[in-house]
Amino acid sequence: MRTVDEEQRAARRTALLDAAEVCFAERGYDATRTADICAAAGMSAGNLFHYFPSKHDVLLAVVDRDAERTATEVGELAHADDPWDALLALLDEVCRLASDPAAAGLALELSALAHRDEDVQHRLQAGDRAFRDALAELLAAGVRTGQVATRLSVEEGATWLAALVDGVFARVAADPGFDALAQRSTLRRVATALLADES
Amino acid sequence: MRTVDEEQRAARRTALLDAAEVCFAERGYDATRTADICAAAGMSAGNLFHYFPSKHDVLLAVVDRDAERTATEVGELAHADDPWDALLALLDEVCRLASDPAAAGLALELSALAHRDEDVQHRLQAGDRAFRDALAELLAAGVRTGQVATRLSVEEGATWLAALVDGVFARVAADPGFDALAQRSTLRRVATALLADES
Repeated sequence: MRTVDEEQRAARRTALLDAAEVCFAERGYDATRTADICAAAGMSAGNLFHYFPSKHDVLLAVVDRDAERTATEVGELAHADDPWDALLALLDEVCRLASDPAAAGLALELSALAHRDEDVQHRLQAGDRAFRDALAELLAAGVRTGQVATRLSVEEGATWLAALVDGVFARVAADPGFDALAQRSTLRRVATALLADES
Repeated sequence: MRTVDEEQRAARRTALLDAAEVCFAERGYDATRTADICAAAGMSAGNLFHYFPSKHDVLLAVVDRDAERTATEVGELAHADDPWDALLALLDEVCRLASDPAAAGLALELSALAHRDEDVQHRLQAGDRAFRDALAELLAAGVRTGQVATRLSVEEGATWLAALVDGVFARVAADPGFDALAQRSTLRRVATALLADES
């Protein structure tokens, strides 16, 4: 059983990660100082170092937590009664996240950092593999229920669905007129068409 | 008529931009010093400042040149005899570029920079708009020839093709096992399926 001290410690660590996510998304990793994270978490400056050795360790903890959340969410979908409904619900969730400035900002900042930070890159790549594996499981379940019939292998289907998901986040960055939430039904149709490639 | 001096000046400016592209793609913008660009262009350090006031101006010139190239290439496609063949050729070219480490590295570095540099962001957004406009023209031509029949508007079709193109570059970054060149025919089929959404 956790002691009160341990619980308080876990709660503060979570508060620091929440605050770091907001700071990284809004002003970027480089421009964020550890004192900014402490202030956003309502703690005095320097307190962060009781929990993380450095700002870089906060970043890696943010990436790991993000990957765990995705893995849990997508992992649950694989056991859904209706795999096709679960896939469409996942695409809706992608559009919702891409429309949330904090979530989209964090995702784009982490992709940008991965381009010059190997630790971030390896973690994002592992998270991406887990995401594609879960998508492939979902597609395999859809093939079993007869809801998915495509010339693509389940791995190829998962790869191209992942490319579409990446594309939605990239559209948010590239095109100020792109409204991800409003594009929900179009994404469903585009994904359906992609997986209906029987020709 | 250009004088020999003017021609030499233009050639050196081009050589500096070529060198800057390689440096930015390989080691990133931040880690590149102007002396590195000069060395890669075979010039003595400091020579760059006869052509560009700062490293940031070199960056913006690289972005502008990249956008002009894309606009020219895609603009030519709009006048192709067979718009559908032109579109498929464009998708092949995307896969070829995404497979070229220098081109993919530059594209990903510029997207990463756009996330924290408004000048880069505005230029990339303008370039993206031009790319989507040209894609929409190509799709409109395909509708006229009867090669494209989709429930999507030509603007929506262009947006989702652009999302797929973004997705290909994002896959290169996220998945070391993704071979963009080998995925050429799959991209053709995925794009065809996306545009065949008649249901």
